[in-house]
Amino acid sequence: MLTSWIDIKPDSDFSIYNLPYGVFKKSSENPRVGVAIGNYVLDLYAVGALGFFQDIALDISAFQQRYLNDFMRLGKPVWKQVRQKLIQLLDINNEMLQPYASQVLVPISEVTMQLPVQVGDYTDFYSSEEHATHVGTMFRGAENALMPNWKHLPVAYHGRASSIAVSGTNIHRPKGQIKPDDAISPVFAPTQALDFELEMAFVIGKETALGQTITTQEAENYIFGYCLFNDWSARDIQKWEYVPLGPFLGKNFGSSMSPWIVPLEALEPFRVQGPEQKPSVLPYLQYTGQRNFDLTLEVAIQPQGKKETIVTQSNSKYLYWNSGQQLAHHTSNGCNIKAGDVMASGTISGKSPESFGSMLELTWGGKNAVQLEDGSMRTYLEDYDTVIIRGYGERNGTRVGFGEVSGKILPAS
Amino acid sequence: MLTSWIDIKPDSDFSIYNLPYGVFKKSSENPRVGVAIGNYVLDLYAVGALGFFQDIALDISAFQQRYLNDFMRLGKPVWKQVRQKLIQLLDINNEMLQPYASQVLVPISEVTMQLPVQVGDYTDFYSSEEHATHVGTMFRGAENALMPNWKHLPVAYHGRASSIAVSGTNIHRPKGQIKPDDAISPVFAPTQALDFELEMAFVIGKETALGQTITTQEAENYIFGYCLFNDWSARDIQKWEYVPLGPFLGKNFGSSMSPWIVPLEALEPFRVQGPEQKPSVLPYLQYTGQRNFDLTLEVAIQPQGKKETIVTQSNSKYLYWNSGQQLAHHTSNGCNIKAGDVMASGTISGKSPESFGSMLELTWGGKNAVQLEDGSMRTYLEDYDTVIIRGYGERNGTRVGFGEVSGKILPAS
Repeated sequence: MLTSWIDIKPDSDFSIYNLPYGVFKKSSENPRVGVAIGNYVLDLYAVGALGFFQDIALDISAFQQRYLNDFMRLGKPVWKQVRQKLIQLLDINNEMLQPYASQVLVPISEVTMQLPVQVGDYTDFYSSEEHATHVGTMFRGAENALMPNWKHLPVAYHGRASSIAVSGTNIHRPKGQIKPDDAISPVFAPTQALDFELEMAFVIGKETALGQTITTQEAENYIFGYCLFNDWSARDIQKWEYVPLGPFLGKNFGSSMSPWIVPLEALEPFRVQGPEQKPSVLPYLQYTGQRNFDLTLEVAIQPQGKKETIVTQSNSKYLYWNSGQQLAHHTSNGCNIKAGDVMASGTISGKSPESFGSMLELTWGGKNAVQLEDGSMRTYLEDYDTVIIRGYGERNGTRVGFGEVSGKILPAS
Repeated sequence: MLTSWIDIKPDSDFSIYNLPYGVFKKSSENPRVGVAIGNYVLDLYAVGALGFFQDIALDISAFQQRYLNDFMRLGKPVWKQVRQKLIQLLDINNEMLQPYASQVLVPISEVTMQLPVQVGDYTDFYSSEEHATHVGTMFRGAENALMPNWKHLPVAYHGRASSIAVSGTNIHRPKGQIKPDDAISPVFAPTQALDFELEMAFVIGKETALGQTITTQEAENYIFGYCLFNDWSARDIQKWEYVPLGPFLGKNFGSSMSPWIVPLEALEPFRVQGPEQKPSVLPYLQYTGQRNFDLTLEVAIQPQGKKETIVTQSNSKYLYWNSGQQLAHHTSNGCNIKAGDVMASGTISGKSPESFGSMLELTWGGKNAVQLEDGSMRTYLEDYDTVIIRGYGERNGTRVGFGEVSGKILPAS
């Protein structure tokens, strides 16, 4: 059992077992790479300037950057060495860094977190069987809920990288073409069906060349870490535009990402077996070992000036397709990946109604409104609602959390 | 009528009226920005170092870069000033640059052209009515060929930015999941339906903020220029995977882009009225003026060691939706754009069979093979075929061409 000389509350997301990476800005200083620990950010550039990374093949300028990409590109051996060094330096029995605490620790309350990675390409999977079944049932009826390809491959589409924003960014209600069922022609209007999607995402830390493939076994060498992801969706815009080439303006007005990237290594204690896959998948999608993670996820809606209401609780262990399968599939045709690419899971829904990962599912297409604790009802999101997604793993008193990704809806501009 | 002191053949794509931008590499030197003129590249960094851009607000280091992005970000006023200066310096009556010819001109044969832009996001539209009708007819029958949304909005999807390669890059035949019609389960195999798509693309030179919109009238201020684009497609992979979220691995194994970006200003002489749009479009998609371009396009297939055969001739004037409408639609929900984003047209097909922009259409789903000049037949592309797309405009003896985008198919790896 590790303990740190930094005072960390037992329910903190940022225990010494976590050490997630982010990019922070303190007042007018340049952005730097840091690690969250309790209520502090550990300034990695400052730690490096004190000489603590001298035995690692690392130019500490990688920690004085706007994004994590330079550090990620150094590769997994360096990520591992830095992590080991930090665990050592933060351990209660180690006195090397303690005298410099005031130089290297910044209260989280004093910093502004930045979008942590420069996103190259963003891919959104559709890997929850429950979510795909719910949406399919609503759109095409229960008998045609899952498309014939769904259990043979991890369905995915390319999303918009430019509009991925860090947690805390306000989202304007998008306008777009909407065709009411009884109308002949579409109208151009603010969406009346603004939704969240409860997702997780992983960030690529190692690139491949065009034509190269990745096996399910190799895949984890390419994954830097995980974060929370809200794939905001305008259901009415999406419904009218998405045939035959997929979602576009119903999604690309904004996606929100939590600022802290939790290293894959920190998630080791939470590995679980994924759902059985039947029919069996093609050889390039077969895998061994425990590749799912038991991570509790929840979504809260907070109306302006009111208390929040948790509207759903789900778990990433429900995902039918794991990250290794997603990456093996994505590169099976030779498509190249780059450090900074973001791969989101798709909405993570469970089987019971309390675990559905979107308002579309929670209200079953807007039919059954959800009551919030202030008594107000929601079919979809209203202006000035803030949506907050949280997630964490817990095992034998060890907690590794993701913090949160939040965003407030502003009226259409 | 302008003439240059550089010897330019009348049928050259790169007349003094064109002056397209690209990034070139000469032996082991660092990449630089240049402009094509006749059979030469004009080295803009060298021109700048001689002081010729002194009266322009421009740091010439923008011309000593791996990509055009830094130059593009300087904005349209700077693009205009540089272009005016270059036309002046290259004019036969101007003697200022001529004494330095050997310092600033490099034969095109001595350089390797690079991917000209660092692509942020890549969007592929579906803006040819003929192409959408042909594909729709084959997939869903003549009565449901065009989806109800098609004439109301420029349908588009997000493509993969990382796998966009410069002309001349070899493309490995991709493998993927294919489900034969009579099979219960898919197989994993090299595609048997490898296709090209004849497209043009425009490159964004000016960014917007998240939430900002662009009108059809403002759109051209955001367009740096145009190039040729081959959206390689594996039809059998695409057919199995694309429901319900659109094309993914059937496309993202590679897209090819011509190395020279022709400035919008160079296309002014070729403006024509676009097709009449019925039903009339929503106000945010309405436009004034001539927004289509009369540019001849052609595709050739060259089997290994054989002569090429031109398999189709089309024209960009056929496009139903113009670039201004595409940009207005893309940003209508507040989606932000960045310098370096690539927006492709979708396959440009004409009405007659000789003008169809893909093998899918030319062979009508593989039914009617096309004969090449060496006597061999093609339904789809074979290994070691090279596909070459060319395009140009011609008016009153003035020629503005795009050069070519080519790519050779290598066997599946």
